[in-house]
Amino acid sequence: MASPIPSFSLPARNRRILLAQRPTGIPQASDFAFDEAPQPSPGDGEFLIRNIYLSVDPAQRGWALGDAGYVAAVPLGAPMRALAVGQVIRSRAAGVAEGEFLYGWFDWQDWCVATPDKILRRVDPSIAPLSMHAGLLGINGLTAYIAFTKLARPAPQETVLVTTAAGAVGSLVGQIARKLGCRTVGLTGDDDKVAACTQRFGYDAALNYRRPDVAAALQALHPKGIDIFFDNVGGPMLDLGLRQMRTGGRVIQCGTASISSWNPPPTGPRNEREVLSRQLTWSGFVLFSHRGDFDAAAHTLAAWLHAGEVTFDEDISSGIEAAPDSIRGLYAGENKGKKLIYIGQ
Amino acid sequence: MASPIPSFSLPARNRRILLAQRPTGIPQASDFAFDEAPQPSPGDGEFLIRNIYLSVDPAQRGWALGDAGYVAAVPLGAPMRALAVGQVIRSRAAGVAEGEFLYGWFDWQDWCVATPDKILRRVDPSIAPLSMHAGLLGINGLTAYIAFTKLARPAPQETVLVTTAAGAVGSLVGQIARKLGCRTVGLTGDDDKVAACTQRFGYDAALNYRRPDVAAALQALHPKGIDIFFDNVGGPMLDLGLRQMRTGGRVIQCGTASISSWNPPPTGPRNEREVLSRQLTWSGFVLFSHRGDFDAAAHTLAAWLHAGEVTFDEDISSGIEAAPDSIRGLYAGENKGKKLIYIGQ
Repeated sequence: MASPIPSFSLPARNRRILLAQRPTGIPQASDFAFDEAPQPSPGDGEFLIRNIYLSVDPAQRGWALGDAGYVAAVPLGAPMRALAVGQVIRSRAAGVAEGEFLYGWFDWQDWCVATPDKILRRVDPSIAPLSMHAGLLGINGLTAYIAFTKLARPAPQETVLVTTAAGAVGSLVGQIARKLGCRTVGLTGDDDKVAACTQRFGYDAALNYRRPDVAAALQALHPKGIDIFFDNVGGPMLDLGLRQMRTGGRVIQCGTASISSWNPPPTGPRNEREVLSRQLTWSGFVLFSHRGDFDAAAHTLAAWLHAGEVTFDEDISSGIEAAPDSIRGLYAGENKGKKLIYIGQ
Repeated sequence: MASPIPSFSLPARNRRILLAQRPTGIPQASDFAFDEAPQPSPGDGEFLIRNIYLSVDPAQRGWALGDAGYVAAVPLGAPMRALAVGQVIRSRAAGVAEGEFLYGWFDWQDWCVATPDKILRRVDPSIAPLSMHAGLLGINGLTAYIAFTKLARPAPQETVLVTTAAGAVGSLVGQIARKLGCRTVGLTGDDDKVAACTQRFGYDAALNYRRPDVAAALQALHPKGIDIFFDNVGGPMLDLGLRQMRTGGRVIQCGTASISSWNPPPTGPRNEREVLSRQLTWSGFVLFSHRGDFDAAAHTLAAWLHAGEVTFDEDISSGIEAAPDSIRGLYAGENKGKKLIYIGQ
């Protein structure tokens, strides 16, 4: 996988986006600080990677707030935790070759000194463009593919409801479900995304959840009820979907993006009666518990990409200065695809 | 299975407990009316059964209110829907023999004319006492056995939390879990039942949920977290248990007995974050979707009963006049075991 290392345009210093203060909800630009440090040097067992694409992900909110439960908080003053695709420039780590591309925990910065445990996947640039390794073949595609195929138990003709249906995960869930013979219904937050659901991502139907009659309008789209509910948002849309499930339905909780803060704990209608009386199976999905499935999933998704059988939109900003405001933008729905920041120039 | 029909002490008239008005919460004695009708006669394809044990079950609340979702409401003026064990006195139904004992939907009344689809299980009086067929081998034991073995995916040494731990279902879940090598913790509502949990039902630990420090006291009983949560109550105890689950834990929702009314819908803390971050599998269980498992479960439970390996307490009142107030008593925790009403005298 090693590629030639470009001899030009490597940044001499390490520009870093530090977490300056603990956010109180969705991280804002003002929660971060810009910093420049010397290019670091790898010690024994470490490698030096030059980041090319920085990833922006909803999960970064939880990492910044320190309330995700399953991962530690980003320390204040440290570079913001982020996934990135980069190229190894120097290696003193066994099994990591200079020139190879990696996808891993390299944070919002030009350079990262890392140990091999920070690698999430090795990047083979021949199977997909570099940026795709941070999205379609990165946590978004892996989440959509693994969560749906392992937890949804889909059968042909079943109806699948997806929230953030035009998003980086949701748009793939809709396409995967359709490939498996399901009928797909998307919920999303603006009319352009509703159009993208049906016109770009192949949903059988889609709906803007902001319309006042959303419950009745959704009901009309699946007269027999929802078999599988892939939810990325929690909150009122979750409550709505649960109440339109068929007996024996499966609910996959893959995110809670609609909840801006868990402190104080938000309240809502009690849902245990829906679980009981509809005999639901409601499962939580955290990608990093499924590492053994990554490679097979990525290769399947890459094959679909080559065959033109999957559409994955990217929204790529240029320059590290776009990073601090990017999580806010993601939660505001401003992005038009998987949000990445290109810093490879 | 047919047994001799007693020629004495068969009631000449049909005493019935009718649902007189729609309850507003837990059904009270005043929601029912006493009635006497002539002994009915079976038509073609029907049989006449004389009830011996009337069952009192938490699920009757939902049947009376008509809010259970998965079953129709009991019509006003009709005998209260109930399970019962009785003996067939006359039969004009193919496959139903005069003299045989049955467990089924025969309602709160002396006599029932029924069709074979009302039979839940055939009763073999040789494998267990008649009353046990309405409890240990009835919906309580079947629920405990089937829900736990099919949905909990138990592994030895795992910690199992059970609510209504000394109840007709809960006490069996604790015993089944223990037989499968699990560590069991019971939650119940009074100190006598706490003692019964550990002394009669073999729980490793038990706790009165009314103590003010219940969260900390529960935490102390399972330092590593709960692997399996078998919940019969919903509400604050559910919320508490969810927040003490281990990653990958299984939650079985088998009842919502702590919620006195779903109209208006009660609210509580949002639980989707627990499902997500703890990667839970939260399943709803309705027994009547698992008919194919009834016979195997009943025979296993009967074998355990014969071997002295399972304890099942019964709380049997005498006389049909005990029926109207019995559901209220169940929700108030007044019973000391599976509540039955004997009307066979």
